[in-house]
Amino acid sequence: MTPAEKLAQLGSHWEDTRDASEIIAPMQDVLGRGRLPFETAAAAGIGHLTRVFGTTPVAARAGMQKVRAAQTFLREQTRLGIPAIVHEECLTGFTTLGATVYPIPMAWAATFDRGLVRGMARAIGEDMATVGVQQGLSPVLDVVTDYRWGRVEETLGEDPYVVATLATEYVSGMQEAGVIATLKHFAGHASSRGGRNHAPVSMGERELRDLVLPPFEMAVRAGGAGSVMNSYTETDRVPAAADRWLLTDVLRGEWGFEGTVVSDYWAIAFLKSKHGVAETMADAGRQALHAGMDVELPDTSAFRLLAEDDPDPERTRAEIDTAVRRVLRQKLELGLLDEGWMPPDPADHDLDSPRNRELARRLAEESIILLDNSAGALPLPDGLGRVAVVGPGASDPRVLMGAYSYPIHVLPRHPDLGLGIDAAPVAAALADALAGTDVIVEEGVPLVDPPAPGVLERAVAAARDSDVAVVVVGDRAGMFGKGTSGEGSDAPDLELPGHQGRLVDAVLDTGTPVVLVVVSGRPYALGRYVGRAAAIVQAFLPGVEGGGALARVLTGAVNPSGHLPVQIPRTGGAIPHTYLAPPLGQDGDRISNLSIAPAFSFGHGLSYTEFELGALALDAEQIDVAGSVRACTEVRNVGARDGSVVVQLYASDPVAQVTRPVAQLVGYARVELSAGAAAEVTFTLAADRFSFTGRDRRRIVEPGVIRLAAGLSLAATTAPVAVTVTGCTREVPAPVLDTPVHIVPLPTAAIHNVGNAS
Amino acid sequence: MTPAEKLAQLGSHWEDTRDASEIIAPMQDVLGRGRLPFETAAAAGIGHLTRVFGTTPVAARAGMQKVRAAQTFLREQTRLGIPAIVHEECLTGFTTLGATVYPIPMAWAATFDRGLVRGMARAIGEDMATVGVQQGLSPVLDVVTDYRWGRVEETLGEDPYVVATLATEYVSGMQEAGVIATLKHFAGHASSRGGRNHAPVSMGERELRDLVLPPFEMAVRAGGAGSVMNSYTETDRVPAAADRWLLTDVLRGEWGFEGTVVSDYWAIAFLKSKHGVAETMADAGRQALHAGMDVELPDTSAFRLLAEDDPDPERTRAEIDTAVRRVLRQKLELGLLDEGWMPPDPADHDLDSPRNRELARRLAEESIILLDNSAGALPLPDGLGRVAVVGPGASDPRVLMGAYSYPIHVLPRHPDLGLGIDAAPVAAALADALAGTDVIVEEGVPLVDPPAPGVLERAVAAARDSDVAVVVVGDRAGMFGKGTSGEGSDAPDLELPGHQGRLVDAVLDTGTPVVLVVVSGRPYALGRYVGRAAAIVQAFLPGVEGGGALARVLTGAVNPSGHLPVQIPRTGGAIPHTYLAPPLGQDGDRISNLSIAPAFSFGHGLSYTEFELGALALDAEQIDVAGSVRACTEVRNVGARDGSVVVQLYASDPVAQVTRPVAQLVGYARVELSAGAAAEVTFTLAADRFSFTGRDRRRIVEPGVIRLAAGLSLAATTAPVAVTVTGCTREVPAPVLDTPVHIVPLPTAAIHNVGNAS
Repeated sequence: MTPAEKLAQLGSHWEDTRDASEIIAPMQDVLGRGRLPFETAAAAGIGHLTRVFGTTPVAARAGMQKVRAAQTFLREQTRLGIPAIVHEECLTGFTTLGATVYPIPMAWAATFDRGLVRGMARAIGEDMATVGVQQGLSPVLDVVTDYRWGRVEETLGEDPYVVATLATEYVSGMQEAGVIATLKHFAGHASSRGGRNHAPVSMGERELRDLVLPPFEMAVRAGGAGSVMNSYTETDRVPAAADRWLLTDVLRGEWGFEGTVVSDYWAIAFLKSKHGVAETMADAGRQALHAGMDVELPDTSAFRLLAEDDPDPERTRAEIDTAVRRVLRQKLELGLLDEGWMPPDPADHDLDSPRNRELARRLAEESIILLDNSAGALPLPDGLGRVAVVGPGASDPRVLMGAYSYPIHVLPRHPDLGLGIDAAPVAAALADALAGTDVIVEEGVPLVDPPAPGVLERAVAAARDSDVAVVVVGDRAGMFGKGTSGEGSDAPDLELPGHQGRLVDAVLDTGTPVVLVVVSGRPYALGRYVGRAAAIVQAFLPGVEGGGALARVLTGAVNPSGHLPVQIPRTGGAIPHTYLAPPLGQDGDRISNLSIAPAFSFGHGLSYTEFELGALALDAEQIDVAGSVRACTEVRNVGARDGSVVVQLYASDPVAQVTRPVAQLVGYARVELSAGAAAEVTFTLAADRFSFTGRDRRRIVEPGVIRLAAGLSLAATTAPVAVTVTGCTREVPAPVLDTPVHIVPLPTAAIHNVGNAS
Repeated sequence: MTPAEKLAQLGSHWEDTRDASEIIAPMQDVLGRGRLPFETAAAAGIGHLTRVFGTTPVAARAGMQKVRAAQTFLREQTRLGIPAIVHEECLTGFTTLGATVYPIPMAWAATFDRGLVRGMARAIGEDMATVGVQQGLSPVLDVVTDYRWGRVEETLGEDPYVVATLATEYVSGMQEAGVIATLKHFAGHASSRGGRNHAPVSMGERELRDLVLPPFEMAVRAGGAGSVMNSYTETDRVPAAADRWLLTDVLRGEWGFEGTVVSDYWAIAFLKSKHGVAETMADAGRQALHAGMDVELPDTSAFRLLAEDDPDPERTRAEIDTAVRRVLRQKLELGLLDEGWMPPDPADHDLDSPRNRELARRLAEESIILLDNSAGALPLPDGLGRVAVVGPGASDPRVLMGAYSYPIHVLPRHPDLGLGIDAAPVAAALADALAGTDVIVEEGVPLVDPPAPGVLERAVAAARDSDVAVVVVGDRAGMFGKGTSGEGSDAPDLELPGHQGRLVDAVLDTGTPVVLVVVSGRPYALGRYVGRAAAIVQAFLPGVEGGGALARVLTGAVNPSGHLPVQIPRTGGAIPHTYLAPPLGQDGDRISNLSIAPAFSFGHGLSYTEFELGALALDAEQIDVAGSVRACTEVRNVGARDGSVVVQLYASDPVAQVTRPVAQLVGYARVELSAGAAAEVTFTLAADRFSFTGRDRRRIVEPGVIRLAAGLSLAATTAPVAVTVTGCTREVPAPVLDTPVHIVPLPTAAIHNVGNAS
């Protein structure tokens, strides 16, 4: 290969970004570069093709024609004839015109359903593979540390084990379909200062290793992920895109990663323009390459200058060869180098198939969380005379979808694209489900702006005149401030956006029982509504099937089973805080006047039936530092309805050589139980699962006492049971990361010791 | 010495905490220990005596009698006859009944007046020495990173160089008086998560070294501080009290510290009870001792158990010997071991002397910051018919004082202690100053609670009927939630506390010109008042002389000259943010919708006269990595009044191997100029002053371009001038830390090139 042919494999080409200007301008215009025509950019071949189906809305057949033309050019008009990897966004589904918009990852996390997430990812992958896409830029493995960050909606919540397991299922599902999954954003993106997108991250290595990195490790070591994308941010003053320790020493050296590291869009150029660690674009490219970056996305800006004023051409040449080898190996494994390979024939494909819809519906239904039903207002009884559905989310289907569905519902130049999806808003779905009931719909307040005169008053009047008021509030996703959730749409605090809080208060003041439905990308502070609302329901942006799913939960056709993958804060102050924190400065020690006690704890979620959890039993009181323990509990549906519940296992390590969280989730199991049925749930915990990064920054298992407790939420656990880990402190460079669960249905007679979780 | 005699020197005794229970309970009751009588606790001697003059209010003579009795017991009734070091709090003055309450450190910082801070510290030290105190638990060197933290009032603001220089002056002043200064809190206390006191700190080593540690380094290396106190917090999961890297490797190894490290009160016990890194109190003691802790305060709880179940008695014995040697050397240097040493004779001492008052007055006057006078409302003109002074701060002298003056104004059991100080509240002082004007005073709203019916309305009516309304809002300091500022009184956000914002809005709505006076411990978000208030004045809790100082500034008897040692935020969201941040994610790149542009920038402060700054001139275009450059500017008072101004020098390093702040203060000079006068200000900058912690965590000076700009605030600087640093990257383990300034008055004829700062 010539030097030019090698460099070409390390870049990409983005043919058509005309309609993307509103979305990408905040990123791109700082660079101020021209774009080369494809035939010039790809004269010596090209590594990737960027978002052919993506930013410019295009029907499947037309996109396939573009891909085919480009791949044919590469095969026939370049010396080596190497096809490109076609990559696309796919966070909440294949991000293209008319494809199914699934719920956001926060909603997947609320299902705690590994199989369902894997099935969804496989379906997304199959759709992409069908039209000729080889790589998807998902999943997001950022662990939430600040609810204000706009990209919280793209994450799987605040627990590294939940993120790790579900992201790994996503990777497996997508790669089973023959599409490379891309782990992002490696690493630290979620912890930007003040919740502001891209702001620097203040974090030390121990916290990074224990909180941020574990999902990536599992997705690499257990999921075999093919690609990793850097984070835009910088941690302790080192940008991820130039961090060799992170991209090479940890990722490849410690975890054995053999795939490609791709840059987040323009992240290499940002080393010069935003981080100020490179003097020139060429230098930025060399720093990224040396750190371990293999492919520059979305186009080849810095990597094409790698030879310019290079102080160490020999090193650069060797590093280019390494990266090229990785790219070509990936193309080989994808079959792109097979004799006679051709992209699929352009054809009409239904990217919103009944199978997809069924998956989207199940995810939406399983993800909806019944936070509070203390007044028993739900399910809505038959025979209600009148129900008011008010709020900015009541009749707008766009509130159901995450920001990464942008080609479908955000691009303002295509008002008619709404035709591509069929998504019933909450109010319409509820009116359908409540046949015979008079359903009145009022906006009350817009999403953010103050209400026009009379609008709020009309909503209040409608509520006053109704038997029940369903108030639908929350977010509408959009990027860079075009919404209240999504990339670059960060929240200044955790109060409901705009004037929505006024609406909720005004409707509560009518005295009509209020069902508060929060449809959002992030948790908002709901403490002030607890005890005032008759019921509170949380839906993390539930996708195209979300309106119907919500209606079915509200009316009882579906029994809610979602559990919180984050906390719901009581108040909006004292942020950031998540449940994974050491005891210092927490409530109860009175050393700060500020409380961080949540309104609803991590893992919380109610049902229309009731579950009881038995005492936790261990098969050993002592285990070796290299051993394992089985923890067993019984869960029983003691109510009158079939339902599902998430049984959770928490560990706490009261004394360690570094400070440790008060409690941490180490296992979970979604259990489906008919009314009256019970099951035995057994978790197999390797001592490795109690490992952490010690004083000297190595991962260890220490001897000592670990307390385990099972629960239906972090706040509702059984009495803790102690297991003593014996032996000498043991280093575990590659620990067991997962907690296998065994669920055995129990005959009723076998149930013993079942008591209420307390 | 016997083992018991050695251990005794490493601890302290707190005789009488009865009246302190409300203050110390949040800390102390978690320990649940009994207290030994002095004769038992000190049978083998004792290292320190804790707060004899402090928590229990006691007149000087009575306190001296207690000290004398205790020291006499130690000299005569113990085998070795070694006196104790008597330590006291002294943050805003000797913290005892009737002593002068100086302004808070944030106010000292606003003066940018090194000599005045040193003079105050010397006066505080002399008062303490006079009554037999040998060590003061000040200054606070925590660099603010989150304005919500309650202890912001105790700091010198958000710039490490300002903190370093003024804290070093404090140390020098106090130690000139023969009293050991104690640097606290080492390290990281200010960066607790969410602004919550004691919450864990997420920070990596580079940020810690460049942002948090420099003030300590200067106070040790240049100030020769005798003692250091650990921070309560934990950074990257390692509690400071058990951090040998911090307390020994950095402090002693890198900086050559030879004094004693003392524990913050109960911090050693917290290793067990709050951090969970120690199994027993004995283990907690050994971990702290091994880390480098020499003395346990406020009593001897953990260190007296050091021998209990000790796995390595030999190491412990050696470490005890080292610590004892340090304590005894300090006692030797203090003269406590001199033949015939005796504590001073009990006597009546005026701890609130005219000298103190004069210092307190000057500090208060120099610290008051005129933020905005765009409507020219200040100084208040002669002959006003009626002035309304409204707000919770108008007639309450307690709002003038920081939380560390607690014996005087917080302890509820002593309502009559107000007699000890003579502090005119703002409204009374203003009424005095505005003889002939009708001054009406109204509370408007209480500090936090909603106003009683009619109270707000009365204040609004008073404002409406007046020519000018002076609205005095802000904090009242108090600990652990008993105030809105102070230790454990953290803010959930940066809006004015309670209902004070409503009061300001209501008074603004009257149309009467409003002079907004914020008397606070932290910066609050004032953006919404800019352009609406006729003038805005910021006073950081200005002490006993603060009411008069404010009145003199408002009426023009004093020309304001304070400059901001922090930013004043525009809005209360997107926190934390301070001015020292790299470019990533700042305003202007639109990658987050949230703005962090302040309402008033770091270094800002207006005057009743006007100053112009000349172009910055350098004496070299290139300097060696070991060289230095002189940067010179001319400042001229072009207005009609005498005044003072702070000339500031900022450096920026556009390309470095790690990310660097957009700009950083590297020098400053307070310059006093008569109307029409000018001066040449020359800063001598060693290249070391551009050093930072590099990729490999060592401090380096890199070759490359540095841009320098002079300014009257960060937002009003002259055009930047470049200096090129040449040579090879140089490691600087002990860099030049200060920037000497030379100020030469200029004859008017010598002024050239003077233009407006832009």
